[in-house]
Amino acid sequence: MHVFESLPEFRAWRKTVEGTVGFVPTMGSLHEGHLSLVRLVRARCNTVVVSIFVNPSQFAPTEDLAAYPRDLARDLDLLAAEGVDGVLAPGEDVAFYPDGFSTWVEVDGLTSRLEGASRPTHFRGVATIVAKLFHVVQPDVAVFGQKDAQQALVIRRMVRDLDFDIDLVLGPTIREPDGLAMSSRNAYLDPHERAAAAVLRRALDRAEALYEQGERNASNLKAGMMEVLDAEPLAETNYVSIADTDTLEELGAIKDRALVSLAVRIGLPRLIDNCILPPGGSLYDDERRPHVARS
Amino acid sequence: MHVFESLPEFRAWRKTVEGTVGFVPTMGSLHEGHLSLVRLVRARCNTVVVSIFVNPSQFAPTEDLAAYPRDLARDLDLLAAEGVDGVLAPGEDVAFYPDGFSTWVEVDGLTSRLEGASRPTHFRGVATIVAKLFHVVQPDVAVFGQKDAQQALVIRRMVRDLDFDIDLVLGPTIREPDGLAMSSRNAYLDPHERAAAAVLRRALDRAEALYEQGERNASNLKAGMMEVLDAEPLAETNYVSIADTDTLEELGAIKDRALVSLAVRIGLPRLIDNCILPPGGSLYDDERRPHVARS
Repeated sequence: MHVFESLPEFRAWRKTVEGTVGFVPTMGSLHEGHLSLVRLVRARCNTVVVSIFVNPSQFAPTEDLAAYPRDLARDLDLLAAEGVDGVLAPGEDVAFYPDGFSTWVEVDGLTSRLEGASRPTHFRGVATIVAKLFHVVQPDVAVFGQKDAQQALVIRRMVRDLDFDIDLVLGPTIREPDGLAMSSRNAYLDPHERAAAAVLRRALDRAEALYEQGERNASNLKAGMMEVLDAEPLAETNYVSIADTDTLEELGAIKDRALVSLAVRIGLPRLIDNCILPPGGSLYDDERRPHVARS
Repeated sequence: MHVFESLPEFRAWRKTVEGTVGFVPTMGSLHEGHLSLVRLVRARCNTVVVSIFVNPSQFAPTEDLAAYPRDLARDLDLLAAEGVDGVLAPGEDVAFYPDGFSTWVEVDGLTSRLEGASRPTHFRGVATIVAKLFHVVQPDVAVFGQKDAQQALVIRRMVRDLDFDIDLVLGPTIREPDGLAMSSRNAYLDPHERAAAAVLRRALDRAEALYEQGERNASNLKAGMMEVLDAEPLAETNYVSIADTDTLEELGAIKDRALVSLAVRIGLPRLIDNCILPPGGSLYDDERRPHVARS
């Protein structure tokens, strides 16, 4: 496995690579969710590249950039065991944000809702670093996790709008035995909070159960979820949403498909989770464009 | 010469191209200025690609999008005579701006000055279409003209900030015998206005002459230029600027190098021109980064 701190050295190696390249961008602190994404591209591409970069531009000044968990040595061991070919891990922010940096990729509309409502510059940071990584890595396939559903939609919008010739693949959310979606931020939870955090998945279960019983009204579905969330004293709900899976506009009733998502603060971290209704669907199921997610 | 209206057909052809690809993005209505850029990349690259697309997103609603001169048949004849290999000429705006389009590349700072002051969304449109074209064409080298100096700086900033692996080359301004910089918009000038339009170059000549006499104070240099411009009754000066060649910040005095630029309305069109002081320099002379303009 080749590990590169330097962008020019990575680029030089990239030019020697033949066949298809699959790419998994990460902020490190890897867990089974990330590794499942690595396996998805490992099965599809000749060469697998993973980036590890805690991107400062997607954190607000009040957020947890400095505290974000980092363990490069452990991350590299995990990636080597998955047969990853190249890792781009520039330790210094300046590699991607030199003096005078002033260009941003902005996705309008989609980014102002849900996560974007409380994190107004977050998706600008995400779209910009992903565009930069796409230019450096030049992948044929890139994979994102459904756990960060809005991010996956923002990246898809950017890939379509800016004509990136990259197939996007969406990996399913990987969960702990009690249903908690895996996230690097789960490391912030103390044991009581960790137990309480399972409430997010239980709220989604309630929405699925109500849907299966025939409920299509979004207010009623959200009220059912809030009932579950309100029963957990450590949970402070930020939002519960039932939205269009393409535009993220809130729905009054589910006609076709919907993204059910929620953000809940439990102790320090703000956790997010989501599911698709009808149950079992994937966020990218509505693919129509040929150059996106052919699998 | 291959001519493509369809992006997917262009992409399929692009995948068959071996060796280096040089790219000249244009809005058509080609003149010797464009052809000089074609020759610059023709000399450097195995394959030359030219795009012809009147990009709606860089025109404000009040500007001349509908009236912008178009003559595809003539343009293709000129390009064929220059040995161009591939032309991307999507006739319909929808090829690049489909329903739901909502992603923009924004370069901060640089874009708010000079042209950006009176055309606030212009450079957002330019940066976005150029990023899109770079993704479709995937050039090794792209060339821009110094006549649109601010555009050349905005594109260089974008290429650096977003880590495009593209060498930028700057072509010198090509002029009519009386000094008027070639521009598709010169076609709007009636004979009297056409004669008056030579005043832009004469104002730049005055700045050069004053500089050669030892004048370094920007106010004095600009006053000299205004004297020339005010003597031409058909000229309505929009701005005269003496600015840093990297940041476009206005200078009080020229220590090292400066971009002298001006915008002047003559009849209908608003014409722009510029030169570098000390005379004879090029806007990209201060290259320091290895992946830009190696020639």
